[in-house]
Amino acid sequence: MASGADTVLQRLLAGGVDVCFANPGTSEMHFVAALDNTPRMRAVLCLFEGVATGAADGYARITGTPAATLLHLGPGLANGLANLHNARRAHTPVVNVVGDHATHHVEFDAPLQSDIEALAGWPDGLVFRPQTADALTAAVDAAVTGAVGPPGRVATVILPADHSWGPAEQGAPLAEPVGADPGPGGIGVQAAAELLREYGSDTVVLLGGSATGPAGLSAAARIAEATGARPLVETFPARLARGRGIPAIERLAYLGEQAEQQLAGATRLLLVGTRAPVAFFAYPGRASGLVPSGAQVHVLDPAELDALADQLGAAPVQISPAGPPALPKGPLTAANWADVIGALLPDDAIISDEANTSGMLLPAATAGAPAHDVLTLTGGAIGQGLPVAVGAAVAAPDRPVIALQADGSALYTISALWTMAREQLDITVVILNNNAYAILQLELARVGAADGNTIGEKARSLLDIGRPDIDFVSIAEGFGVPATRAGTAEELAEQFAAALAEPGPHLIDAAVPTFF
Amino acid sequence: MASGADTVLQRLLAGGVDVCFANPGTSEMHFVAALDNTPRMRAVLCLFEGVATGAADGYARITGTPAATLLHLGPGLANGLANLHNARRAHTPVVNVVGDHATHHVEFDAPLQSDIEALAGWPDGLVFRPQTADALTAAVDAAVTGAVGPPGRVATVILPADHSWGPAEQGAPLAEPVGADPGPGGIGVQAAAELLREYGSDTVVLLGGSATGPAGLSAAARIAEATGARPLVETFPARLARGRGIPAIERLAYLGEQAEQQLAGATRLLLVGTRAPVAFFAYPGRASGLVPSGAQVHVLDPAELDALADQLGAAPVQISPAGPPALPKGPLTAANWADVIGALLPDDAIISDEANTSGMLLPAATAGAPAHDVLTLTGGAIGQGLPVAVGAAVAAPDRPVIALQADGSALYTISALWTMAREQLDITVVILNNNAYAILQLELARVGAADGNTIGEKARSLLDIGRPDIDFVSIAEGFGVPATRAGTAEELAEQFAAALAEPGPHLIDAAVPTFF
Repeated sequence: MASGADTVLQRLLAGGVDVCFANPGTSEMHFVAALDNTPRMRAVLCLFEGVATGAADGYARITGTPAATLLHLGPGLANGLANLHNARRAHTPVVNVVGDHATHHVEFDAPLQSDIEALAGWPDGLVFRPQTADALTAAVDAAVTGAVGPPGRVATVILPADHSWGPAEQGAPLAEPVGADPGPGGIGVQAAAELLREYGSDTVVLLGGSATGPAGLSAAARIAEATGARPLVETFPARLARGRGIPAIERLAYLGEQAEQQLAGATRLLLVGTRAPVAFFAYPGRASGLVPSGAQVHVLDPAELDALADQLGAAPVQISPAGPPALPKGPLTAANWADVIGALLPDDAIISDEANTSGMLLPAATAGAPAHDVLTLTGGAIGQGLPVAVGAAVAAPDRPVIALQADGSALYTISALWTMAREQLDITVVILNNNAYAILQLELARVGAADGNTIGEKARSLLDIGRPDIDFVSIAEGFGVPATRAGTAEELAEQFAAALAEPGPHLIDAAVPTFF
Repeated sequence: MASGADTVLQRLLAGGVDVCFANPGTSEMHFVAALDNTPRMRAVLCLFEGVATGAADGYARITGTPAATLLHLGPGLANGLANLHNARRAHTPVVNVVGDHATHHVEFDAPLQSDIEALAGWPDGLVFRPQTADALTAAVDAAVTGAVGPPGRVATVILPADHSWGPAEQGAPLAEPVGADPGPGGIGVQAAAELLREYGSDTVVLLGGSATGPAGLSAAARIAEATGARPLVETFPARLARGRGIPAIERLAYLGEQAEQQLAGATRLLLVGTRAPVAFFAYPGRASGLVPSGAQVHVLDPAELDALADQLGAAPVQISPAGPPALPKGPLTAANWADVIGALLPDDAIISDEANTSGMLLPAATAGAPAHDVLTLTGGAIGQGLPVAVGAAVAAPDRPVIALQADGSALYTISALWTMAREQLDITVVILNNNAYAILQLELARVGAADGNTIGEKARSLLDIGRPDIDFVSIAEGFGVPATRAGTAEELAEQFAAALAEPGPHLIDAAVPTFF
């Protein structure tokens, strides 16, 4: 009879899950051994759990289907939580398999024991703990269907070691899938059309979720053209289509004061695949909610966006055939590095964007680049960019993946570089290296904690990450990723083109000064 | 009036907490700014939260008083949890300050919002969320006294941003400290003496907690000498005194089958500052509890150990003046590297020991070295060693700190190297680099998942961390730590001596083959 571990793997495959990002420990050894009985399951070793969970997020953002993670007990899951938080906010399906002590071992409270359920539930997660080995099939099926949703969710199967090593019948597949929840119904095409006919120029159409693909963006652009409505994309979309042939719809700004300007004057807000906009943080004397005072808020199902455009008789949108930006020259600045990327971006690329403050001018630079996808920091938990790039590259081996990565954030999950090297993933990492937590230098003033001139020495020391400066070339080479250093736009262009031309991962440590 | 952030800092200082290991974000900016009003609070920047929490653990293991951490919302706390788990198991006092959104921002469920309480409670933690700014004093006082205990615990103050930036009276100090819990009373000196007089040679005295300092070990050795009892130290003591002049009492083995041999034949178990021994993991067909069948278990307060020795009339123990091992020669092996450390260990060193499988022969090599302290992996959550070394070095700037660090485990919190460089901490890191999760290669066979000969290719690929091999010299230099590579015992000796002779951090990447 198959072991429990075999059964778990078979049910994952049956649910369409055929990649596992793994950082196993002793309690997962039978699962690891069972991988050799399961040729269709690809196992990708990660050297830190946050890499595994972020990779699963990036994978599913590209394929639409979940990957599994394999994590070791509570502490292993804890290390993966921050990127599961991002997956939660992206509505990404993820299936965690978290090994636990054998059931008879629990009463002994061995050193690594902890409350795994508390952690697994934290990212609004579904949690399944099969009580017997024969319950594994139902637990895995429930986790997979629950993760898929919609909406996509984080689902966790807690796998006691004795269920893993013991015999387990595969059992009957789950009769009733878990977790499908169509969400709020919305106002429907008819009412939305009436709204826009009457209040078009006073309406903001805010797009998120599945509405940020090429079809959704095109429909939104048609609607805007026909009605005068203003389309915007949510601040951090899970996956945004961008580039030539795709309407370049502005994103709602991260900075609340800018977002307020974008939304100013709107009396109607039509939410399509997203929720009412809120400020990322609170600031003294500033509003938290970004819905303009008195504005009505309506919801539309993203699947109805195209029908709405048709209903409005909106013509196909003519997109100006703007080309990519020209290649800039001279020392790198917060502006010109993005033009290098825009100018040289290859066809059908995937950008994992954790450029943070350095990326403020990136959207302008990529509107005329070849069509591509952008994966952004949906949950705000930094350390997402490199792992998501790993997952995206595993999901789409034929597409070039570009990780645009702030320096400080890179260090939370830096060992993702090693997985890129081992799997020879076609990823070009560009580190935007300003030796600072630049966003915090900005935020320190914004929250009123200090004027630019009066930041004390100790506060300043917590916001800069120089002294010593971090050498990402050296770190990347340590993890087996070839790396170069760019100080000028010409160097960045040359190195970026070379990295794209050669298979496998590369890193460019780009000395980009802070934006402000 | 002082701000809430000022008040929090003042109350931390009033509670004896004057070091803060920080990885702040926007919601902590007022706390950061307030540091400049608080000269006595030392702030140490960490580039990952697991470094901050591990450093706080290491700090308190040396000073006996808590350090604070400063963490950013739920995801920041999540990243710090694994080392808080280790602190929990070490009974280390730690005070986390976790920033949260402003109270009026919570209803908007901004992207970074999450259930912070769920995470803070996970490591058996005390959690305090002041409901108003004026409640900050009581919350911080409660957290500090609760953390100190005894027993030492992890305590968390959740600090909403508006309480931090608003005015706050310091308020009255907490009248009633939180958390003191003397624990089980134990059998007392008289009964313990009777037990040992009657059953001495059938008794194992198992030492942990405060009983693993020089006084406790000496008392235990006297008791053993006088009664024939077998003394043992728990597997992973928080802080173990070791070296010349200190009885070299064996530790209970990590491998359950070895531990069973050590305990075999005991009909009485006297627990002093520890709990009944359990296997780290369950294995098919093996017992989880390690108390020999039928043995009686008794508890003694560590504070009574010396009185017990006196009561038994035990003479002072003569400790053989064994010297350190001789310096070995030739290619590094799993055995000879430890002799290099033992031979060259400086006076009054602190060893942060996360050598894992590579460290199996370390105890034999250090028994005759100068007296030192060893900090071990109490909770089994790997990634502790480098952060604990950071904290120990901050706690004891005049003592040399040696981090003996397995390669795979090092990568969970590798950015600790940067904090060593910035703070110019006197730490010598020796990476035991075998390009493998060697412990898992061992465990795969132990749990019966595979015989050595039948490990499949995929399973094998998840247990080795070569392909590409990780170059820790390059990584360390990237973080600003000078580094060298050692392939022979002579090279290790030369580099270790040189690193000790020069202030500031150093790393040696030692090519030590696996033990088995």
